[in-house]
Amino acid sequence: MTAFFSALPLTSRFVSFEGIDGAGKTTHIYAAADFLRQQGAEVILTREPGGTPLGEKLRELLLQDAMTPETEALLMYAARQEHLKQVILPALTAGQWVLTDRFNDASFAYQGGGRGLATAQLTWLDAWIVAGHQPACTFLFDLPTSLAAERIERSDRAARDRFELEQSTFHERVRQAYRTRAQENPARFVTIDASADPTEVGATILGAIKAHWQKQTLAS
Amino acid sequence: MTAFFSALPLTSRFVSFEGIDGAGKTTHIYAAADFLRQQGAEVILTREPGGTPLGEKLRELLLQDAMTPETEALLMYAARQEHLKQVILPALTAGQWVLTDRFNDASFAYQGGGRGLATAQLTWLDAWIVAGHQPACTFLFDLPTSLAAERIERSDRAARDRFELEQSTFHERVRQAYRTRAQENPARFVTIDASADPTEVGATILGAIKAHWQKQTLAS
Repeated sequence: MTAFFSALPLTSRFVSFEGIDGAGKTTHIYAAADFLRQQGAEVILTREPGGTPLGEKLRELLLQDAMTPETEALLMYAARQEHLKQVILPALTAGQWVLTDRFNDASFAYQGGGRGLATAQLTWLDAWIVAGHQPACTFLFDLPTSLAAERIERSDRAARDRFELEQSTFHERVRQAYRTRAQENPARFVTIDASADPTEVGATILGAIKAHWQKQTLAS
Repeated sequence: MTAFFSALPLTSRFVSFEGIDGAGKTTHIYAAADFLRQQGAEVILTREPGGTPLGEKLRELLLQDAMTPETEALLMYAARQEHLKQVILPALTAGQWVLTDRFNDASFAYQGGGRGLATAQLTWLDAWIVAGHQPACTFLFDLPTSLAAERIERSDRAARDRFELEQSTFHERVRQAYRTRAQENPARFVTIDASADPTEVGATILGAIKAHWQKQTLAS
């Protein structure tokens, strides 16, 4: 990252949505974006892995091709570097909001908890590539893996990716790693009970987004 | 890497060929493989980036898509991890020779010297991913960049990749980084004057390969 980017209070309008597959993040990301746009904010919706032309090509490899846990982590951080440099940091610099479906915490959950990579390696990659550009606010969609699996079961099995096809023990390790990450970063994380009624979940998120938006408005 | 792999004296039949584009490595790699096969050795010819199905897909991205130096390094080491785990280590374990057109030194030359990434980052990736599995012998094809450029000029410009299209100053930095790497690892490197007559270059390499083969035969 250049000194130009590093010198800015970049992360204030940067919000990530995290959780295991089947947690139901998507609807709520769109609702959060709609709320912010109604307030006159410019909002970018993006996702990981992906978010750039190269990142989307890497996403396809990550979701379909067999690879070692180390390779998986390296490709995730490669896609993240492009995402930060080409999309997230320029948008934040221009005063836009960035709502992303997964970011850095997902690597600690999936490649760390799920695949068993050592936290030390992920912390090093984080320090090098993310370089402090963490979201200001992270919504963790938490729910029992059995319930998430039921939701995924409704989808076409042939269409499922390499992560969705993993055993339930894998998803349980991912969930626990996410919860640990939230406990370690209480100021940044908002943990959502994603097993609750969708209307209730939506109200919780909109309440938190509204509070975060008001903080931004007061600060500017 | 597993303890199983780490415990083996793997690198004895592992030979890499390094150098800037236009140094003329290809012919000599085939000649070296032919010599070893004539002695009854099983030989695998491979290359970086590439060498595996996923690695070849990453090669295509690396040669064609715009990306940051950090992304370039991450993708190179991702491809290298697959190459080591799927191809190089199993072949060495089975007693085969592995001749590779570029390996780890290329990252220090291209991403380090060429793109300006700090040696500290590359050294960390090297320690994590290559984990000591260095070649036993590395041939560095060294020649003035102006001469290499003349050779590349004869090829179709439209067919040139992202590295071949770089400025001469880039190739000069790559060359110098390769030379530094050779000076730092004198026991492993054989530096070849690639500006010499091809017959003479071939004789030098075959002499070195023959000596290395004889060492292996005596050792086994």
